[in-house]
Formats: sequence, C-alpha cells, structure tokens
Amino acid sequence: MPPLTCKGFKSCGIAAGIKKNGNPDLGLLVSDRPAAVAAVFTRNIVQAGPVVLDRERVKAGICRAVIVNAGNANCANGEQGMVAARAMTAAAARALGIAEELVLAASTGVIGAPFPIEKVESAVPDLVDRLNENGTDDLARAIMTTDTRPKTGECQGEAEGIPYRIVAVAKGSGMIRPDMATMLCFIWTDAEVAKADLQTALKRAVDASFNRITIDGDTSTNDTAILMANGASGARIQTADDLAAFQRLATHLCMDLARQMVRDGEGVTKVVDLTVRGARSDHEAAAIADTIAHSPLVKTAFFGEDANWGRIFAASGRAGVDFDPDRFDLFFNDVQMVKDGKGCGLEAEKKATEVLRLPEFSVTVDLNQGSAAAGMLTCDFSLDYVKINADYRS
Amino acid sequence: MPPLTCKGFKSCGIAAGIKKNGNPDLGLLVSDRPAAVAAVFTRNIVQAGPVVLDRERVKAGICRAVIVNAGNANCANGEQGMVAARAMTAAAARALGIAEELVLAASTGVIGAPFPIEKVESAVPDLVDRLNENGTDDLARAIMTTDTRPKTGECQGEAEGIPYRIVAVAKGSGMIRPDMATMLCFIWTDAEVAKADLQTALKRAVDASFNRITIDGDTSTNDTAILMANGASGARIQTADDLAAFQRLATHLCMDLARQMVRDGEGVTKVVDLTVRGARSDHEAAAIADTIAHSPLVKTAFFGEDANWGRIFAASGRAGVDFDPDRFDLFFNDVQMVKDGKGCGLEAEKKATEVLRLPEFSVTVDLNQGSAAAGMLTCDFSLDYVKINADYRS
Repeated sequence: MPPLTCKGFKSCGIAAGIKKNGNPDLGLLVSDRPAAVAAVFTRNIVQAGPVVLDRERVKAGICRAVIVNAGNANCANGEQGMVAARAMTAAAARALGIAEELVLAASTGVIGAPFPIEKVESAVPDLVDRLNENGTDDLARAIMTTDTRPKTGECQGEAEGIPYRIVAVAKGSGMIRPDMATMLCFIWTDAEVAKADLQTALKRAVDASFNRITIDGDTSTNDTAILMANGASGARIQTADDLAAFQRLATHLCMDLARQMVRDGEGVTKVVDLTVRGARSDHEAAAIADTIAHSPLVKTAFFGEDANWGRIFAASGRAGVDFDPDRFDLFFNDVQMVKDGKGCGLEAEKKATEVLRLPEFSVTVDLNQGSAAAGMLTCDFSLDYVKINADYRS
Repeated sequence: MPPLTCKGFKSCGIAAGIKKNGNPDLGLLVSDRPAAVAAVFTRNIVQAGPVVLDRERVKAGICRAVIVNAGNANCANGEQGMVAARAMTAAAARALGIAEELVLAASTGVIGAPFPIEKVESAVPDLVDRLNENGTDDLARAIMTTDTRPKTGECQGEAEGIPYRIVAVAKGSGMIRPDMATMLCFIWTDAEVAKADLQTALKRAVDASFNRITIDGDTSTNDTAILMANGASGARIQTADDLAAFQRLATHLCMDLARQMVRDGEGVTKVVDLTVRGARSDHEAAAIADTIAHSPLVKTAFFGEDANWGRIFAASGRAGVDFDPDRFDLFFNDVQMVKDGKGCGLEAEKKATEVLRLPEFSVTVDLNQGSAAAGMLTCDFSLDYVKINADYRS
C-alpha cells in the first residue's frame, strides 16, 4: 500500500513511556495552515479532561493540531485532569510555534490513573521533530490500546476538477457501543469544507458507521471523532453534488474503519452483520437489533459456532417492542432457520451451522410487520474477551 | 437439614429421558385439596407454551398441581407447543384423578427444540407413584438446567396461634435479568391465604428478590413463579399483622433463593451486593445500578479481582442519568476507593484489591445528590460463563 498522504498535513507517533510495555503511545497530527474542524464526542456523563477541553475549543471551528496519547485516559482525575489536558496542548503549541487554542487533545487507556504529564511534555520536542507526510501508520500505532492492529483508511475525491484526499486513523476494540461517537478517530482532508458542512458530514458518517457497531456495549469516557479540512489541495467542496460526494467518501471511510474495529475487537472471532427488517418503525427495528447485538447468550453462541436461534428469538422478545412471535423469520446468511416463529428443522440447522463456522456472516431477522429496518455490526463474546478484560490493568 | 414438608403437599422428581445426560428432568407438586394460587410470568414477548397456558389457568385463582420439566423449554414450537403443554397437564390430571384445569405446567431448557411429549406422558404414572411428603429436594433437582446445585428454602410462621410453613424450590443460573419474574420458582404453604392477598404477597416478594438479581441480563421465555396456599395447617392469614408476617417470610424466602441462584450462576466466582445511593430518585438509582450490574467490563474486572473502579464510574456515566461526576464516591465493602470523582490512591486500591479477592463483597456508589437508593445482587463474568454458553447445546 502506498503511504497515505494528504496535502498540508503531517503526522507521527512515538513511545513516550506512558504504556508499561514501551509501545508507541504519543501521536501528533498537524496541518500547516488553519483547518476547519468538526468533532463528535462521547455522551457519557463522565468525561475525560481532553474531551471537556476539546468540546470548548472546537466551537471556534478552527484548529491546527491534535495531540493524542494512549496508555492513560486522563479521566476521573478531577481538576488535575483538565490541567494535564491543557498542558499537553500547550507543550505541542510551544514546540510548533502556534496558539494553544488551535491544538486539540485526546487520551485513551486506563481510567482513573494519575496522568504522567511530565512524560508527555518531555517527549513533545522529539514528537514534533518526527512529523512527516507519511506518518499515518505511526500515528495509528500510537493510539492503540488493546487493538492488535493499527487502523487506517484513505480515499480520493474530486471537486471543481481538483483531486482531494481524505485520510483517517482510528482505535478501539473494547468499551464500544453504538449511539455514541465511540473510540478515537481522526480524519483529515486537504479539501476545503465550510465548518457547518464539515460538522454535518462528520455526524452523518459517524451515525452510519461507528454508531452502528458494538463490541461489548460499554461506552467510553473518552470517545472522540475529529474531522479536519485544510483546503491545501485547492479543491473546494461547495456545490450540493460535491458535498454529496464528499459525504459518501467520508461515510465509506468511517464504515471501513468501523469494520476494522469490530474485526479487531477484543477477543473477536466472528463479525456479524445483523439486520432487523419488517419492523413497523426504524426505532423498533433498532431496539431489537440493539438487544440481540448485546445479548451475552447470543454472543457466546456465536463464539461456540452454535446456530442457537432460540436465544436470538428470546432476545428479540425482551427488547420492549410489541411484535407477533408467530411471524418471526430468521436467516443465517441466506439459510432460513426460523419461519413463522418455528424452527425449520435439522437440515436447515445443519446448513446454518456451516454458516456459523465462517469468520464473518449475516444474521437477518424479519418481523414481517412493516417495512422499517435497522442494521448493526456486532461480534461474538469469546474466552479471550474475558481474559483480556480480567487482566487489563495487571 | 430435616426434610422440608408442608401439610397437604407432596412432590417428587424423576428422570424421564428429556435431558441427554439422564439426570432428573420431570417434577410434580400436588396439593391434596384445591389451593389458592398466584403467579408471576416473564415479560418477554416470546413466551413458551406452558406460560401461555398458565396465564389463562391461574385466572381462576385455584389449582391442585404443577407439572414441570427441564431439558426442553417447549418454546418456539408454535401451536404444537400449546398442544404439548396441555397434554402434560392432561397426563398429570388423569393420573391424579383431578380436573385438567387445576394443573399448571412449566418447562425449562433449550428453546426451539421439538417437545418430547411422549416421554413425559409415559413417565407420568411413575411420577405420580413417587409423590411423597419429602420430595422437595427431588423436585428441586428435576428442574435444574445449568444449575450445579438444587435450590430449596423453607420457613415457619404462626397465625391465630397455629403454625404454618412455606416451602420453595427454584432453578436458574443463566438468562437471568431483573425486572422480570426470572427463572422457575414454586412456593407452597399450608396456610390459608385469599387469592388477592396471595398475588400481592408473591409480587412483592418477587420484586424484592428475583427482580433484583442479574447474572447475564438476558430474559427467559419461560420465567414462572407460582405460589400455592392450601390451608391444610388450619392457619388463616387474614389480619393485617398476619399478612405482614406472611409477607416478610415469603420475601425472605425468595431473597434466600435469589442469592442461591446468583451464587450458582453460570461460571460465577464473585457475588456482588451492589448499592447505588445518594440519588435524586429511586428510578435514577436503579438505572445506574442496572447499567453497572450489566457492564461486561465491570463484570470481567470482578472476575479478574481487579478494583478497576474507572469502569464502574464509566458505566454509571452512560446510564442516562444526569449526575455530577465530581461528587461521585465509591466503596468496595467499607474501603473508600473514590471520593469526589477521584481515586483515593494506592493504599486504598491495595485494600480494595483485598476485598475483591473475597467470594462475596459489596460495591456502593454514592452520588451525593439526594436520598434515594437502589440495590441489586450481581456477579462476575468469567471464562466459565463463556464456556458454558458456547457449548450449551452441544
């Protein structure tokens, strides 16, 4: 794969000693000129210092840099957490020679551990020295926690006859739940996009991607998605057509990263495209999809490669949605396992079991009561999920 | 322990070949005279045949017997499920020489497998032959699924100077969630209690016990709690004082069974008494308790004996309740781990870690915003939970 570059942006990632294992844990993304910025944050009441800081700073709609660390969430540190978040951005601003207010911060890792700001401050000069146009992969590595692989994406568009690029990195493999920004994601483009259009594009892209995945149903205190547009390519996204094309690209990029996140989810051995259709409303379809996707019994059955459709049926029934169980149909890929609320027999089950042996498959529930539908990308619940999270801090 | 007996009741349990492993799987409870009856059922939209049948039959408020099987939930079997549930009660009624309408049915086990009604019918004569006054333990064993221990309870009261007894059996160790009847529980007393009082007593007892426990957050399609009162002791529960005393006994009995269920929960190594206090309303306290109790990250940390309070803090923050994170306090037993939203340091964490090594401990969250509180009995999420549920049907 060619290096991911995007005009006017540099990035990098280094090891600053925050993670106990010595892996990269400090990253920087910088635009050589002021960029329009949009952001989406966690809806958790408990929010990390950098989230509180960024919420305030993105209101200006303009930004030059994002400094991010892994290994410590800088959350539940009280006033010290805010002081540390500000100090991170101040250190980056000094080394870059820009205003502190133009720098955003993000942190990910253990909640409630004192933040080692001195490690960040002493590493920042080296961090700035290493900025380069091909630093995307290093940046992606520096934000990993329990992720086993860096997650990056890129795509190219054209506006007014001028090509532009969009590049993104993301991290996240646990504490993932939809309907929130979820995880960390930084997206940057050398197109020029107005602040309001940028926020709309980010919100829509997140709704169609990160807000439709789940790993364990927990919500982070640090979830942040930031989209920067610096216009360095000269491509201006202004017309409705160009905006629509930009939206498609941004959404596609986020969906790709979201799938990377689920594939690399903690202990994940199965990636499941779940669809609930035939509902009376989108809301009811989503409620059932959410309940199925978070059911420990459904998820452990996926892990066991067991076509235990009774658990999916039972989870659907407790979603708080009124439906007729006698019209319930269920498919594993294209194998119909349940028709009118009853199992389709041993032959169907044999075929369904084959489907469950695949690393990725779809589960489709049809309520046969209407035309609304909702989709989610979910995963299994494995022994390794428990191992990873029982031992996380040790 | 002396055998659990209660005047005018007989019970038993045998192996009818429904379970693959040959363990007891068919039980019977019979009153020698018509008994007043109350019942609470699952709120799942998907309901097993016996649940649908019982809902109708308990309306009469009178009953003589309950026939129950484990190894097959008789759920998602369509009209055949209803036919089989009726046939179970008809077989018992014939052998007992009583009206079919006076027999209730319950089933537990795999959802969606065809129900082996012929095995039940051919075993019923033997089942009735084995009825005896000391059959409680056998009945408790016959309703076990992934339970590793039978669950029974008994207590004694007095009304109008006459002693009476209450005896109960329960099963349940997975697919357990509060706010539903949860699991199977049969309670019988030789006191005389009016139908309406009996229903109130059962509802209150269930609310204070089975509705406050969680193992994995899934809701069964078969949950049934039945309380029978046959008056054989001659003790009549009529005055407000006697009703209150009966309520206390019934509630205490259900709380004891609920704790037995969590202790024997699938893969459980830690039983956790969770309390959220200092809330502005009971509803808000319960919402936070529910979110903490179902968080996979919190539960795996319990399993790992990791005092990872950040996960409890984060789970509280996503419960949909507005609170001030800077007033959040948290205790493991009497060890304060968080004060005003910040960790209490390494010494506190060392002591908290000692607490987490215990098989049972309490977790108390204090929001310091009001005087409302809610409690739940929860547990950890272990490797064995995943193993048990990945392999359940194989």
